[in-house]
Amino acid sequence: MIDSLSNPKIKYLCSLNMTKYRKKEKKFLVEGKHLVEEAKKYGLLEEAFSISNLENYTQVSEAIMKKICNTNTVVSEIGLCKMIEKKELSNLVLALDKVQDPGNMGALMRSACAFGFKTIVLGEGCVDIYNDKVIRSSQGAIFKLNFINTNLVNFLKDKENEYVIYGTNVINGIPLSSIKKEEKMIFVLGNEGNGISKEVAQIIKNNIYIPMQDTESLNVSVAGGIIMYHLS
Amino acid sequence: MIDSLSNPKIKYLCSLNMTKYRKKEKKFLVEGKHLVEEAKKYGLLEEAFSISNLENYTQVSEAIMKKICNTNTVVSEIGLCKMIEKKELSNLVLALDKVQDPGNMGALMRSACAFGFKTIVLGEGCVDIYNDKVIRSSQGAIFKLNFINTNLVNFLKDKENEYVIYGTNVINGIPLSSIKKEEKMIFVLGNEGNGISKEVAQIIKNNIYIPMQDTESLNVSVAGGIIMYHLS
Repeated sequence: MIDSLSNPKIKYLCSLNMTKYRKKEKKFLVEGKHLVEEAKKYGLLEEAFSISNLENYTQVSEAIMKKICNTNTVVSEIGLCKMIEKKELSNLVLALDKVQDPGNMGALMRSACAFGFKTIVLGEGCVDIYNDKVIRSSQGAIFKLNFINTNLVNFLKDKENEYVIYGTNVINGIPLSSIKKEEKMIFVLGNEGNGISKEVAQIIKNNIYIPMQDTESLNVSVAGGIIMYHLS
Repeated sequence: MIDSLSNPKIKYLCSLNMTKYRKKEKKFLVEGKHLVEEAKKYGLLEEAFSISNLENYTQVSEAIMKKICNTNTVVSEIGLCKMIEKKELSNLVLALDKVQDPGNMGALMRSACAFGFKTIVLGEGCVDIYNDKVIRSSQGAIFKLNFINTNLVNFLKDKENEYVIYGTNVINGIPLSSIKKEEKMIFVLGNEGNGISKEVAQIIKNNIYIPMQDTESLNVSVAGGIIMYHLS
């Protein structure tokens, strides 16, 4: 059992609470037995840790577990996972422009997974998807999707002949119900407060809107869910 | 300008950060000029406060504003608002069973408003909707809806002859796409982790599910948004 806070492995795990070390190491942590098992199932688990003496888990003291985890709630198991980025795209792609709320990001992942949008393209300025809050709210969807971090303007320019690209825009859009599923589609969603940024909007030729009464906009994860459901 | 923390009005405003005082006084606070103006538009504003010298605002010092507000971010204006509960129901009703996440509650309010579900029935165990996080994420929808706090089991029993009541249940439900809008409908959504509670589920005769791939469930505000969009 590891019970020293100065143990190099523990120091390494603690460092992964910071975005910069996650990026550098291409590793991230998940909390809870369910997520550890999901990570294992999808081949992303490198090592599992528990405060109990369990088979296939490295045992650590409760003090160590508290130190590693970000939450105030007691976590009994954590998993050290590796990030994998594949370059190939699925036919249905969700592209996110500066989506910043961890809860929204997690909810979008769940919906993307549920409705067959197996690739999420993350433009610059999105919340780090390996943030503990995103992982919790993704409910395991994070293991089932392919993520591509890129410059969204260049990405969309590169794909515009191969994919039909849609954005959301009330002013020059058509109602969601009037569009049909096509073989290859990219759907772009924008920032919570500001929508799709100007540079990205300039490249998008097709826009939809969701007809609403008495409301300016929906929460971005709700809007994304409705769009992906409609196209599934 | 009020600059004394012991001023009775300031003490009163601070007390409204706690659920029990909000309930007792039937008052709540909103932050930001936009929400203050929305509250005024809907006749719910009692008094507005600003750190600047503005017409129709009571000026308070920055120290006082910080004390009143829950956030670390600087808020320049707040509004003291009254709660109004009307007993009459709209034709489309959203009923929530132990929905606990403030972000989900706020997002559900936005969607309910957007898709014509003008009454939200809050069963026991839901997050307090006058919580500052709920108000922020509701983006003003809180002023446009009617809320009824009640025992959900009794409420549904009472309405089952007048309204068609739907819940969400994958096991004995029918796909969402197979149901049509009826004149009077109540849609019940359950808790984030546990879904609709057993006591409430027993009363619900009609259940739908949202067809999904490779995913157990959606975020509750996303599921609610998809259902309400489908019926709007």
